[in-house]
Amino acid sequence: MSQIITFGEVLMRLSPFGNKKFIQANTLEFYFGGTEVNVGLSIAHLGGKVKHITAISDDFIGDTAIAHLNKFDMDTSAIVRSNRPLGVYFLEVGAVMRPSSISYNRSHSAFSQIEPSMVDWEKALHKGHWFHWTGITPALTQGAFDTLKAGLKLAKEKGMQVSADPTYRSGLWKYGVEAKDALTELLHCSTVFIGGVNEINEVLGTDYGYTNEEFIEASKKLMEAFPTINKVFDKIRTSINASWHKIRARMWNGTEFRETQDFEITHIVDRIGTGDAFAAGLIYGLQHYDDFKSMQFASAACALKHTYAGDVNYATTDEVQRILDGNVTGRFNR
Amino acid sequence: MSQIITFGEVLMRLSPFGNKKFIQANTLEFYFGGTEVNVGLSIAHLGGKVKHITAISDDFIGDTAIAHLNKFDMDTSAIVRSNRPLGVYFLEVGAVMRPSSISYNRSHSAFSQIEPSMVDWEKALHKGHWFHWTGITPALTQGAFDTLKAGLKLAKEKGMQVSADPTYRSGLWKYGVEAKDALTELLHCSTVFIGGVNEINEVLGTDYGYTNEEFIEASKKLMEAFPTINKVFDKIRTSINASWHKIRARMWNGTEFRETQDFEITHIVDRIGTGDAFAAGLIYGLQHYDDFKSMQFASAACALKHTYAGDVNYATTDEVQRILDGNVTGRFNR
Amino acid sequence: MSQIITFGEVLMRLSPFGNKKFIQANTLEFYFGGTEVNVGLSIAHLGGKVKHITAISDDFIGDTAIAHLNKFDMDTSAIVRSNRPLGVYFLEVGAVMRPSSISYNRSHSAFSQIEPSMVDWEKALHKGHWFHWTGITPALTQGAFDTLKAGLKLAKEKGMQVSADPTYRSGLWKYGVEAKDALTELLHCSTVFIGGVNEINEVLGTDYGYTNEEFIEASKKLMEAFPTINKVFDKIRTSINASWHKIRARMWNGTEFRETQDFEITHIVDRIGTGDAFAAGLIYGLQHYDDFKSMQFASAACALKHTYAGDVNYATTDEVQRILDGNVTGRFNR
Amino acid sequence: MSQIITFGEVLMRLSPFGNKKFIQANTLEFYFGGTEVNVGLSIAHLGGKVKHITAISDDFIGDTAIAHLNKFDMDTSAIVRSNRPLGVYFLEVGAVMRPSSISYNRSHSAFSQIEPSMVDWEKALHKGHWFHWTGITPALTQGAFDTLKAGLKLAKEKGMQVSADPTYRSGLWKYGVEAKDALTELLHCSTVFIGGVNEINEVLGTDYGYTNEEFIEASKKLMEAFPTINKVFDKIRTSINASWHKIRARMWNGTEFRETQDFEITHIVDRIGTGDAFAAGLIYGLQHYDDFKSMQFASAACALKHTYAGDVNYATTDEVQRILDGNVTGRFNR
Amino acid sequence: MSQIITFGEVLMRLSPFGNKKFIQANTLEFYFGGTEVNVGLSIAHLGGKVKHITAISDDFIGDTAIAHLNKFDMDTSAIVRSNRPLGVYFLEVGAVMRPSSISYNRSHSAFSQIEPSMVDWEKALHKGHWFHWTGITPALTQGAFDTLKAGLKLAKEKGMQVSADPTYRSGLWKYGVEAKDALTELLHCSTVFIGGVNEINEVLGTDYGYTNEEFIEASKKLMEAFPTINKVFDKIRTSINASWHKIRARMWNGTEFRETQDFEITHIVDRIGTGDAFAAGLIYGLQHYDDFKSMQFASAACALKHTYAGDVNYATTDEVQRILDGNVTGRFNR
Amino acid sequence: MSQIITFGEVLMRLSPFGNKKFIQANTLEFYFGGTEVNVGLSIAHLGGKVKHITAISDDFIGDTAIAHLNKFDMDTSAIVRSNRPLGVYFLEVGAVMRPSSISYNRSHSAFSQIEPSMVDWEKALHKGHWFHWTGITPALTQGAFDTLKAGLKLAKEKGMQVSADPTYRSGLWKYGVEAKDALTELLHCSTVFIGGVNEINEVLGTDYGYTNEEFIEASKKLMEAFPTINKVFDKIRTSINASWHKIRARMWNGTEFRETQDFEITHIVDRIGTGDAFAAGLIYGLQHYDDFKSMQFASAACALKHTYAGDVNYATTDEVQRILDGNVTGRFNR
Repeated sequence: MSQIITFGEVLMRLSPFGNKKFIQANTLEFYFGGTEVNVGLSIAHLGGKVKHITAISDDFIGDTAIAHLNKFDMDTSAIVRSNRPLGVYFLEVGAVMRPSSISYNRSHSAFSQIEPSMVDWEKALHKGHWFHWTGITPALTQGAFDTLKAGLKLAKEKGMQVSADPTYRSGLWKYGVEAKDALTELLHCSTVFIGGVNEINEVLGTDYGYTNEEFIEASKKLMEAFPTINKVFDKIRTSINASWHKIRARMWNGTEFRETQDFEITHIVDRIGTGDAFAAGLIYGLQHYDDFKSMQFASAACALKHTYAGDVNYATTDEVQRILDGNVTGRFNR
Repeated sequence: MSQIITFGEVLMRLSPFGNKKFIQANTLEFYFGGTEVNVGLSIAHLGGKVKHITAISDDFIGDTAIAHLNKFDMDTSAIVRSNRPLGVYFLEVGAVMRPSSISYNRSHSAFSQIEPSMVDWEKALHKGHWFHWTGITPALTQGAFDTLKAGLKLAKEKGMQVSADPTYRSGLWKYGVEAKDALTELLHCSTVFIGGVNEINEVLGTDYGYTNEEFIEASKKLMEAFPTINKVFDKIRTSINASWHKIRARMWNGTEFRETQDFEITHIVDRIGTGDAFAAGLIYGLQHYDDFKSMQFASAACALKHTYAGDVNYATTDEVQRILDGNVTGRFNR
Repeated sequence: MSQIITFGEVLMRLSPFGNKKFIQANTLEFYFGGTEVNVGLSIAHLGGKVKHITAISDDFIGDTAIAHLNKFDMDTSAIVRSNRPLGVYFLEVGAVMRPSSISYNRSHSAFSQIEPSMVDWEKALHKGHWFHWTGITPALTQGAFDTLKAGLKLAKEKGMQVSADPTYRSGLWKYGVEAKDALTELLHCSTVFIGGVNEINEVLGTDYGYTNEEFIEASKKLMEAFPTINKVFDKIRTSINASWHKIRARMWNGTEFRETQDFEITHIVDRIGTGDAFAAGLIYGLQHYDDFKSMQFASAACALKHTYAGDVNYATTDEVQRILDGNVTGRFNR
Repeated sequence: MSQIITFGEVLMRLSPFGNKKFIQANTLEFYFGGTEVNVGLSIAHLGGKVKHITAISDDFIGDTAIAHLNKFDMDTSAIVRSNRPLGVYFLEVGAVMRPSSISYNRSHSAFSQIEPSMVDWEKALHKGHWFHWTGITPALTQGAFDTLKAGLKLAKEKGMQVSADPTYRSGLWKYGVEAKDALTELLHCSTVFIGGVNEINEVLGTDYGYTNEEFIEASKKLMEAFPTINKVFDKIRTSINASWHKIRARMWNGTEFRETQDFEITHIVDRIGTGDAFAAGLIYGLQHYDDFKSMQFASAACALKHTYAGDVNYATTDEVQRILDGNVTGRFNR
Repeated sequence: MSQIITFGEVLMRLSPFGNKKFIQANTLEFYFGGTEVNVGLSIAHLGGKVKHITAISDDFIGDTAIAHLNKFDMDTSAIVRSNRPLGVYFLEVGAVMRPSSISYNRSHSAFSQIEPSMVDWEKALHKGHWFHWTGITPALTQGAFDTLKAGLKLAKEKGMQVSADPTYRSGLWKYGVEAKDALTELLHCSTVFIGGVNEINEVLGTDYGYTNEEFIEASKKLMEAFPTINKVFDKIRTSINASWHKIRARMWNGTEFRETQDFEITHIVDRIGTGDAFAAGLIYGLQHYDDFKSMQFASAACALKHTYAGDVNYATTDEVQRILDGNVTGRFNR
Repeated sequence: MSQIITFGEVLMRLSPFGNKKFIQANTLEFYFGGTEVNVGLSIAHLGGKVKHITAISDDFIGDTAIAHLNKFDMDTSAIVRSNRPLGVYFLEVGAVMRPSSISYNRSHSAFSQIEPSMVDWEKALHKGHWFHWTGITPALTQGAFDTLKAGLKLAKEKGMQVSADPTYRSGLWKYGVEAKDALTELLHCSTVFIGGVNEINEVLGTDYGYTNEEFIEASKKLMEAFPTINKVFDKIRTSINASWHKIRARMWNGTEFRETQDFEITHIVDRIGTGDAFAAGLIYGLQHYDDFKSMQFASAACALKHTYAGDVNYATTDEVQRILDGNVTGRFNR
């Protein structure tokens, strides 16, 4: 059976219980996450076959991370082990007007040392038919950028579908390469663009606004600049406060513009990984449904993710489908 | 002092902390519950004298269940001990649009083996003046149905009040008896009906709608068919989502139709046992107040239950009264 | 560097986890609090230099309380140790229409034995430039009243600023002194009044209403009666239910009336210490900003406190400032 | 069925998890205990009928304490409610050479206010045939001493058995009565003495040593001085360290001296309440067995208690019997 | 790569934290176990390739159990899903002379319904070279016995190695078949016997004693009666108490008798699954070492298992080897 | 009052609860530690005045670390904040023959960037009279070595006492400097040597054995080579297994050889920081007692530390003294 390939850093997330600040706490919960592996694990939980490629520490923390991936029946055979430690991030969860805070300890992690020579892409992509990447990986180090580029080029040669989530985060990109240049190169290998006008403006150097008309214009311009891209999906989040959000999405696939309804999350359980749940829902959806149904599926999956603790979306296909059928009142399953 | 009698299975409930799914968890909380014992314990906590009759495993889990009932000063002297295990159910608590899920392990439990010969109803009802039953018990096994029937017949002979909550759950009723036939037999021993048009339609084979007019019509029809019944109480729940509900109630007592105001629960702590809290409030109320006041008391008790973890309503009479007095802003008690 | 002085009882707070009642629980969380020390610790966390004066038990519980104060770099050198135990209070946290409940065990605590001879006020106030007191302390015992009075008289002599939060709580004041008489005496040493028309009516024997006009009138009357007072700040809370509140504030400083916007807290984490967070924000603010900005700062600090567990406001100056800058959507800090 | 009566203070015990000190912790476990109620609850758990008499706070903490007693099916109908708080004690659990530490907050508790007029002893002892008291109660306050004395006098009149555990603790006895005088008066109402040469020396003013011969001499002397006493039981503890103890017992019943074997507890779980478990085992035993068998039963019960967390001995009769049958290797029960 | 096959019930284990009894607890930990799957998971953790065959409930509990097996990279592809619930067992952990207690709820579990027609043994054993079974499975139901028998017959035909751990537990074997008859039939398919004189006496109807000489005699007799068996391994446990054990082993392989040294476990963390860890160590060992080295490896693995919480032996090959190298002082690994 | 100065890295320690492996856990406890700060905090807890100098991350983790140090009333005014993350180490706690494991993530931490220019040693040592250093710091980076060297040279100039704990750990010392050379340079500034023949052999290139005679010889040789050193203290640990150790110490102060008795720790709670507790006890002791009493005090403090969770010795002077007085049976403090 053909596989979906994800590539990127796996981090350990550490948080106090509940809404405590570190300064109050003396116990922590841990999870494993990272934007690309979140996408992969969430697809695996929906029932897709996924292989994740990364570098992980060769110690008991690394063993634990791999056991976590195995738990979802993910293919972990291509993971490289390293004598550097696994990256860590600390999360303080906010509430209402108090934002959550994140502090990263990843700059010299196992993944930070990755080089193209460490991944045998021919073997890794052997059964693959879809490759998902995000803008976090090329932003980390030259080696991560180069390794991803090598993988994407081979994926393009093999005619694989490639989804790109070029999330731009200004705190990264510190090793000397310009975000715009790197993303341009990688987008020329991609077929599905997951992002909105901000991301398009960043790549094209334009300044489109947020209206639907401008979104369609921007998408057309993007497809002109990157002829391999044939679909653009944009997830839109409205934050009432840290505990109460709305989610919707829109798309342009070259011929059709569509929008979803609003999904309202009045009591957020966990905000981390919700964008990744959208991407995972979309990739899973595009294997089984048309573009609009896929976007609806992705939006409902993203909304549901806000109700699970941890980085992964524990929603199943049935659970997502029930939301799409209008069952948003959360009545009991017996 | 005269007692309220409840009869039905006691189950152990097991849930992960917070909103976790089992697949994420490795620790659980446990509670003891079951619709009839929830009613009994909630009445006991309000100050009523209650005896619960059931069959419970003869091991340390059963000892723990009985200790839990003793904690509320419930009369446990008529409980039968069995070498079958206590039934268990697993609960995953949902949030917002994610529903909660329940998985039962009760089909060969201690209670599933109950037979009329195992309960000495004469002795059990000696001090009783009220008997409460629900549609769950006759739906489980022939023995449970027969045992309940024997108890209700004696209660009727003794002129006891009998409240019926004929909750219909289609996943049960698998042992060969028709729900409608069994409930009909049991309702002929009952004096107070706790249920709405759905339950009436189920029993009478009618198809009344949800308006107040149709509710009154249905109630009249029910009283014609079951002349022992002289009061009908209907609790109505509106679910905005799994975390936010509204509760109200209406009644027909042969001469008068009344409705309560809406009780809004914006941040649900625990949804389990809230219907049982309504029944408990009603039974307790009818010992002390008129019909309308009893229904208001029951509705406020039901609303309050949503704020307690576990199956039991930990509200006291004073706490319920304060809600009825309009103190719904949750200001401190010092 | 000059210090802010707080004086009052430190209590140990004990609560079940989450929203449980004691009768369901068998584990507790503990915090240290008390209205004046909450103000002091919250100022310390904002960056102010604070010395707290109190009497604390000379056992391992007292050691733990002092370690908690040290954690915030508070000056604990003037604390008296006693062979009486530390006061304790038990808190059950409510939800929605269920109020929280508090039960105190403080009547013969270490602090209840305090006498003027036990505090060397000359030394204690040596570096002080501000003294904060509340109406709780004089309500406890004659000794607590006398000790506070001695401190305030010296503070007045030294020309210190003195903020008064004369919170009236009818369950206290049992030792024989009239609240009105005692507060009158103490207010004659004070310069900033933190309270509204209720507190003014209590002290003056008047019956002003809640409109802004009446608030201004009442404030003017208060300043006439207590010429040392030159500013009045009033925090107003609207409770939708126990989980959802609104906060705003208003002021009269002799020349100007101002009001803040509403701060809405849709999902309260912890209600305790929020009034103290207002006082702390105000005192901190008045060292750095004009009156109106100080009141805004205090209101935002108070709103933020609702999102932290425990008695202390863990908000930093930056976090408060971001709320004032309109960042109330709780987006991530990365 | 006839009852065993216990009388004494119920305290709330608060401890950090595991072996932590308070200064490291921020969560606690709570239990309810007190030497006499520990004896009562341990007898109730063995299957005896027990009524406990005490004064308990009239708040949610007191409700929780009573619910704890109800859980063991103890008769709580004679308990007095008071507007004073329940006494509290804090426990830090030691290990190896580090001793455990205790800090009490009981001096003005609900029980500290008890007076003879508050207990209707006629009614309380109506079904009683055995009364157990300890030296803690008369050491607390004049009122506690007087109330106990009134109860014991009536017990003597009614010909009840009375067991005395005159534990001498020098930190108590602060209200003006001499320990020796008070204990002498109370022992004149007693029939079974639970204590060793230290306690006998304290009461008689003698200085017997620890040999068996001197123990027998001392016991004879005691029975001369207190002719109602006809049995003396002495539990002997050898502490290797805080985690490793040995227990044995010896007796003189006027005609016979007997000793038990050593019971070795190599890994102590909880040290609190182990002496109370000995007394409970003895009282339970003397209803069913001869003196020597009762002492063996008590010693095994005491040893087992070291393996349970909390104040109460959760051992059942069967579990104690298995120890006496020589099953000390802790093999599985399946 | 060739696989080791295990077959048997997977149960959910539920225990209070620490040494608490259920009657004291309100939170639980859960694990998944069962003697055969414990063996399989422990081999998998040592690095072997293992396939487990069983029937598991088709609900979220079953999903969680399979996720647990996947975590160890076990082959779960042959697992049958059933609409019966997963079996559950409750464990109270003892200490010192207090034994642990177990209560099972497995008699109508998913696995209790297993029938030969439900397992495709040809496919299941396709890559297998070793099959491990225990006496628990044939003791449960006729279907479990028949299904195991079908598997073992095929294993024998295919010339696979078959290890038998015929643990005799008298509380089982209730469905009508004699233990001796069933075990005889199954042992005729087996090549390695894991058991001592008790098990041999049970099967042969003999009464050998515990000396090494009698062990050798008994083993010879067993090999005469069951010519396929060519090795006997006997693990011997000496219990000082429930917290302190010693382990050693002895063997007879037709030509040679050998014994291991004693392994002393002074502070047991978890007793469950330690026999399974011996079997797992032995099976793993026999793939790589000679008979004596395998037995030593198994004994060290068994000893180490006492230091891990849960049913599985989390020891790695390296960790076991270090014990065999004499590193039993537990010095730090840095 | 004069201060004791400690200098070295502060790390965050993360461990699963109890004895779990990471692969089993999903919650962690955290502590702050590091050999030098452990010494400092343990002295502070004994009552000494201590200033710790280090570099700590400028984020909420760093804030929490400093709050932890403040809790002990340690002087944190000389701590440097850095934009690198705080170092982390993961600890799996072993039991019996299973060793504990440690995995470090410190190589690019805040402290790893420290340079002499970042510490104003003149100001830092202003009130200091004692400086404690260990062999961990110079083993980390050139900058750490140079910074320490600068501090020690100034300490020597100022005539301060300097205690050296040259713990040799071969996994460190990777940046190019030879351990022997670096330690030699630093020991020339030191007055008290805490170490045994292993450490002396490492520094001098000798090969003394473990007898008392050879220890004395080695100590004399050391004092010849380093004339500033006038005392040698050697702590000797005997490990029965990971849960059971013995501790004793010996000394040579130029004129006198002395040994302590054995301190046996039969049930270890936490092994981390016990060597640091010895150093802390010694340094504290040498301010108040003669050499032999100081060594006894240090040994008892070290033994006690094994009974506290975390890196710090929570023992007080009184608690240590009681051990020295022979109270090792762990009887209650009331």
